[in-house]
Amino acid sequence: MPDTPSRANGERVLADLNALRAIGAYKTGVHRPTFSEPHAHSLEWLAGKLPEAGLTAAVDGIGNVLGTSPKEGPKLLAGSHLESQNYAGWLDGPLGVVYALEAARVLNPDPDVNGAVEVAAWCDEEGHFGHFLGSRSYVGAVTEADIDAARDRNGERTMREAIAAIGLAGRPRLRAVRGRHIGYLEAHIEQGDTLESGGLKIGIVTSIVGIWQYRIVFTGEQNHAGTTRMAIRKDAGLALARFCVAIDEAFPATCGPRTVWTTGRIALDPGAPSIIPGRAEMLFQIRDADAAVIERLEEKLRAMAAEASARGPCSVTVERLRTGAPAMMDASFQDAIETAAADCANGKSLRMPSGAGHDAQILATIMPSGMLFVPSIGGISHHWTENTADEDIVTGARVFVEACRKLLTR
Amino acid sequence: MPDTPSRANGERVLADLNALRAIGAYKTGVHRPTFSEPHAHSLEWLAGKLPEAGLTAAVDGIGNVLGTSPKEGPKLLAGSHLESQNYAGWLDGPLGVVYALEAARVLNPDPDVNGAVEVAAWCDEEGHFGHFLGSRSYVGAVTEADIDAARDRNGERTMREAIAAIGLAGRPRLRAVRGRHIGYLEAHIEQGDTLESGGLKIGIVTSIVGIWQYRIVFTGEQNHAGTTRMAIRKDAGLALARFCVAIDEAFPATCGPRTVWTTGRIALDPGAPSIIPGRAEMLFQIRDADAAVIERLEEKLRAMAAEASARGPCSVTVERLRTGAPAMMDASFQDAIETAAADCANGKSLRMPSGAGHDAQILATIMPSGMLFVPSIGGISHHWTENTADEDIVTGARVFVEACRKLLTR
Repeated sequence: MPDTPSRANGERVLADLNALRAIGAYKTGVHRPTFSEPHAHSLEWLAGKLPEAGLTAAVDGIGNVLGTSPKEGPKLLAGSHLESQNYAGWLDGPLGVVYALEAARVLNPDPDVNGAVEVAAWCDEEGHFGHFLGSRSYVGAVTEADIDAARDRNGERTMREAIAAIGLAGRPRLRAVRGRHIGYLEAHIEQGDTLESGGLKIGIVTSIVGIWQYRIVFTGEQNHAGTTRMAIRKDAGLALARFCVAIDEAFPATCGPRTVWTTGRIALDPGAPSIIPGRAEMLFQIRDADAAVIERLEEKLRAMAAEASARGPCSVTVERLRTGAPAMMDASFQDAIETAAADCANGKSLRMPSGAGHDAQILATIMPSGMLFVPSIGGISHHWTENTADEDIVTGARVFVEACRKLLTR
Repeated sequence: MPDTPSRANGERVLADLNALRAIGAYKTGVHRPTFSEPHAHSLEWLAGKLPEAGLTAAVDGIGNVLGTSPKEGPKLLAGSHLESQNYAGWLDGPLGVVYALEAARVLNPDPDVNGAVEVAAWCDEEGHFGHFLGSRSYVGAVTEADIDAARDRNGERTMREAIAAIGLAGRPRLRAVRGRHIGYLEAHIEQGDTLESGGLKIGIVTSIVGIWQYRIVFTGEQNHAGTTRMAIRKDAGLALARFCVAIDEAFPATCGPRTVWTTGRIALDPGAPSIIPGRAEMLFQIRDADAAVIERLEEKLRAMAAEASARGPCSVTVERLRTGAPAMMDASFQDAIETAAADCANGKSLRMPSGAGHDAQILATIMPSGMLFVPSIGGISHHWTENTADEDIVTGARVFVEACRKLLTR
């Protein structure tokens, strides 16, 4: 056994992350939506890198990349995602994939490490066509009919068309082999400012919040914006605005200390300046680590919609599109990350919940899972200005590789 | 002079309107946006009909159709528009064009009528590429640079491309010849329910409201919808919703009895369910027949934006996109319509302002102008269910033709 064990190569990690940033570059970030040409290119890039870590690469029929090892002993699955939100950050996803690749490159050839790290890039974590379609496919929660039904956010393109366009149509989908992995580890940028503002380097995720998503539709009466008197209007857009404001006034009395809610999209129909909108729609999301809190808020939401409909002049319907139960991270994984952070980050770590959803919450349904965060500058996320200091990226990589080593050599 | 003068042929009018309804039919209405294939087809249809009225047809470089008469004597210009709002009604525009065509067919060959009716279909009254581009071009208020800059509502297609696509690129634009016309008469559906609810058949337009249009932009901070605490958010979408509600609360104290205001379009940027919108935009319109009222409301709007910006967390800017001064209809034109309605509609007419904008307000800047309304069933407008009873369409045609006769034979 050598005196100094092999460890993460910071320059190699930064070079790989910058190589991925060049694929679909947009300003200092990337525009690499699911199944776009740059996204396909990034999957090929990863498949080409996996052999460096002694892994056999496969890209499956839903766009997951998996690297499997022939090495004896325990296997730890690690990864994240390669597609991005539109015009968004360079590290959201690729950081966890490159850390996993680095851990595999460092640990798999090491004769002192029993077992291997296997690497995954889960497709469409960012939800261009659904939610967590890649990791949910891997755990067996996506049917062919689900894929048949999936369309992009604008409803313009089917997922089948998009898969075919990058040459993956007809490929089998890879499924988890029960018992193969001791668990799943994922690294990600924090996407908030808790670590930065506390001078900390590593977040140890304790749980991942549940995300409930709703479509709220307001139905009024489409009419001419010049000839219809104010008194007789049934303006669906105004009803929507009132509802948004009412939510913001009502929720604080019912929510938990870390609950968040967001209206991310609004559409007025027909959306012309001289027409009173007859229909309006908003996508609304509630997140909390406690499902009971979300259930309480949903009840409030439905009561408010019923009241608004009864009051008029527009009717309001609430449809739940997505139910994402909160996920607990494995205690022994949290401990391994904490010990690694003590060794490689001067102990500057903090246990914290994740307010964002991650593939780890899907993997956690079939195996012990853990997550590690690195700081985000200014807490900025889902925007091309998202960034993390190079030094923090390298520290995170070292902690990640050591946590993998500890988990494999327990 | 024959005992019974020639008059409008109701069956011919209905047949023509139904022929136009078949061009770009959508349910019981039409989808015939400016420079679409069906719109181009409707222009050709009209150009083919004009010779029946002894008129020489021309389609100009901005998509206006004009029929000119070689007859001696006074000329009355009459018309409306052929394009529609998206998925909208069959009569909004075509009614006025077919009435003008019918008046020309009845009056131009009549040796007892001194002079002729000339027919116009003004392009893009519905504002797919601008506002009143066709009639404004005719009165000399549109430059080549304006056309260069015009794009469709989504900003996806230039007006030049659209004009070229239907084969009109490079054609000269027709301009009004000063002194040629004694004035302009336009018929239109009411687009409100005043006539219907009063059991009336003819609206005599006294003035056309001014339309002021604004882009109101909210700037906050784009961020992750899961990791950004409620307390530190700068949600531009929520700021917009609050502003819409605040307008609706503040305006009634400042507006006039017939003022209307409308938010017809809202866009959140980036518009994804998991992202707090960093920017939000609304198109806002105020209409009133009294410019002083609108000026007072604009002042209020700007004060509210300044207050909202000062209060934070988002900044608000108000940009005026369009200033449409109210237009007065000519008194002698109003009298001619009223007398014709006494003859042909048992006097069931009402003098009233128009809450909608019309090409007549543009023509009124260079010649005496008048407008006549027919009832709209249920007041529905800018929707494919818009309709008028056949009987009312025929009555309107008779009144229109008689009003033209009176104006030419004064």
